[in-house]
Amino acid sequence: MLNIVDLRNDFDGSIKKDLYKKLTQRTGTQNGTNTISIVAEIIDNVKQNGDSALKEYTKKFDKAQIETIKVSEEDITAAYKEVAPELLETIKKSKQNIWSFHEKQLQNSWISPKEDGTMLGQLVRPLEKVGLYVPGGTAPLISSVLMTAVPAKVAGVEKLIMCTPPSQDGSINPAILVAAREAGVDEVYRAGGAQAVAAMAYGTETIPSVDKICGPGNVYVATAKRLVFGDCDIDMFAGPSEILVIADSSAVPEYVAADLLSQAEHDILASSVLVTDDVSLLDSVKTEIEKQLLGLKRNEIIEKSLKSYGFGILVDNLEEAIEVSNNIAPEHLELCIKEPMSILGMIKNAGAIFVGNYSPEPLGDYMAGPSHVLPTSGTARFSSPVNVDQFIKKSSLIYYNKQSLEATNNDIVRFAEAELLDAHANAIKVRFNK
Amino acid sequence: MLNIVDLRNDFDGSIKKDLYKKLTQRTGTQNGTNTISIVAEIIDNVKQNGDSALKEYTKKFDKAQIETIKVSEEDITAAYKEVAPELLETIKKSKQNIWSFHEKQLQNSWISPKEDGTMLGQLVRPLEKVGLYVPGGTAPLISSVLMTAVPAKVAGVEKLIMCTPPSQDGSINPAILVAAREAGVDEVYRAGGAQAVAAMAYGTETIPSVDKICGPGNVYVATAKRLVFGDCDIDMFAGPSEILVIADSSAVPEYVAADLLSQAEHDILASSVLVTDDVSLLDSVKTEIEKQLLGLKRNEIIEKSLKSYGFGILVDNLEEAIEVSNNIAPEHLELCIKEPMSILGMIKNAGAIFVGNYSPEPLGDYMAGPSHVLPTSGTARFSSPVNVDQFIKKSSLIYYNKQSLEATNNDIVRFAEAELLDAHANAIKVRFNK
Repeated sequence: MLNIVDLRNDFDGSIKKDLYKKLTQRTGTQNGTNTISIVAEIIDNVKQNGDSALKEYTKKFDKAQIETIKVSEEDITAAYKEVAPELLETIKKSKQNIWSFHEKQLQNSWISPKEDGTMLGQLVRPLEKVGLYVPGGTAPLISSVLMTAVPAKVAGVEKLIMCTPPSQDGSINPAILVAAREAGVDEVYRAGGAQAVAAMAYGTETIPSVDKICGPGNVYVATAKRLVFGDCDIDMFAGPSEILVIADSSAVPEYVAADLLSQAEHDILASSVLVTDDVSLLDSVKTEIEKQLLGLKRNEIIEKSLKSYGFGILVDNLEEAIEVSNNIAPEHLELCIKEPMSILGMIKNAGAIFVGNYSPEPLGDYMAGPSHVLPTSGTARFSSPVNVDQFIKKSSLIYYNKQSLEATNNDIVRFAEAELLDAHANAIKVRFNK
Repeated sequence: MLNIVDLRNDFDGSIKKDLYKKLTQRTGTQNGTNTISIVAEIIDNVKQNGDSALKEYTKKFDKAQIETIKVSEEDITAAYKEVAPELLETIKKSKQNIWSFHEKQLQNSWISPKEDGTMLGQLVRPLEKVGLYVPGGTAPLISSVLMTAVPAKVAGVEKLIMCTPPSQDGSINPAILVAAREAGVDEVYRAGGAQAVAAMAYGTETIPSVDKICGPGNVYVATAKRLVFGDCDIDMFAGPSEILVIADSSAVPEYVAADLLSQAEHDILASSVLVTDDVSLLDSVKTEIEKQLLGLKRNEIIEKSLKSYGFGILVDNLEEAIEVSNNIAPEHLELCIKEPMSILGMIKNAGAIFVGNYSPEPLGDYMAGPSHVLPTSGTARFSSPVNVDQFIKKSSLIYYNKQSLEATNNDIVRFAEAELLDAHANAIKVRFNK
């Protein structure tokens, strides 16, 4: 079911080029001007009419007539009763692992005092208020709540709020509410779509404005995030999920097939790619995929996904496999090879790297600890997994005394004059009576 | 010339509220749909027609008919001959200070191996290719080139390119070319406006596509950055410059006045704010401003700027001054008070903090070391000065062995099933023959 691409005879590089394009541009990030104007209108309406606009959109888009936007303590208590105790334990364990991993990322403010009396440094502080968007839909994204909220709380975010669209009866999936509470989310609101993004960006009577909005969503949510960006911060744009497995003859076809299938079930736009130098491994993986697929519930989605974006890529050697991976910059990269640690230094672009036969991608989705919110569609070239860095900000610190300023005062004046800014030069001159 | 605001009698907080709004919303970050469609067309044209589209726009917008887009070695050698030797020395000193400060920010990749055989970590790597936009105009932004390019090079960026619009004769200011070479910029191109942003985002025959685009620009440049964001990364949106000085009776009116004036000369939208609990200091600063203004070349800009966005704010005490500052989240914050270090912990939002009477803002603009590219318009709430962090990316690292995966395999399966993703569960089950 995988599309086979043989790069061993790609003499002019044209096959590679087409492949990279196909895999990194599965969805455009440009939004049509029509979507932009619809979303801009929603944002304006929420800005001007606050809660009443929100309720109106919730009625229109979510078919839910809600009275209160904020989820109450009673709702949350009730949710705990509906979640299986084993699942609650699993959620707690997952939260603990996420917390431990992210705690190691905390940075200190620092200073660098020098003999000449100067002192420079950086103050590191958490964002004060963060908003998390959680889409609705049939499959509850329990783990995504943990994987965004916990890093924010570890960073020290004081107020973490969450917006999610309600069902038609106004309810929210209890597992989502429980995960939110366990992760430390302070307040949950019934609001979805572009209107929820607008509410978190500008505030309403009920929903406070935040400094940063995180979380995936449909094209309206993504467009709204793009439009409010600058008035508050936003996280990355989440595209369809993807995995790339680099495997050699030491890999287990059964495992590789299962991991490719697990990615393909997300979405018909999801991409599952195997890159190997071993033709017989590729054959075995293909056979295993056909076999395992029969027992899987989401086989229709998987078939469509593999047909469009499932690839088995043959290369001459491991170096070429890494080159292919670096160009695709996959969200998830599995290394099912003999000596995975020896190639870490060659991997330039990847959201998360899963090392060895017993680190399958679902381990990272749920339990390992690093956030599963990862850069997609080739954006691992320039962006990072959700982690503590995204919930802190820094301020530069500059201290000079009279002597150290005097030692450099001519440079400052010269620079200011070269840039034709004489009031800048004046600010130095007045201090030394020039 | 300062607008006086007395917060000592602001019983209902309404004066504060108006003030914060006025100061943080000096420019909207929303771009009109008309600008969006103009810029979208430019981007499409550059995407499709590359260099020839670039040359066409350079002729249209910059009135320059250029033959080669890339600046040659000969151009750069010639530029060195045109720059005064003292200025070159100052540029070199500044570069060294910026380099030293940013070197202290380099982060290591790290791992956390545990007794149970698991190993988690983060790989830290530089972005491969970065593009720097430098606007044209009368005052050459020599220092801005250094303040963006050096942090990128410290981070380890392999290929750093620069685009800047040429003069009508096709030339580029020699001091800009020299600063670019000193800072380590690898290639300079004659291209400006939205078309330069498009070229760096998608590449042309001459200009390579980059992973991140940095640098300030007019509304077309800013809109282009917003539209290409996602296909590559972008830095912050730069608004008009601003300073807030917190001063008490220990401050020197002459210095405070000079620092406020230095900010006001940037732009009629620039903002200069003094917050003090000392009425007599405020009076003396006002007098000093009138006095010093007479000797400054850009006095017309300064007068307009101060009239619109120059404020002298009276507060009851230092705590209230800090509260005002945190709400405005100034780009530059000067602490001209008796014990500045004792309040650092209370400052939540500021781009750069200048401590004491001998750390005037122009010191930071040119020589101190921290980048002068700082968050404006209140965005210090959620963003940081340009620093090494913006030129690196991280990948998560996950390694489990058979035993450690087995220990958590039930959790993963449970989680996957709760999210209705049975191929995820299958990826675990196949490894333990379930």
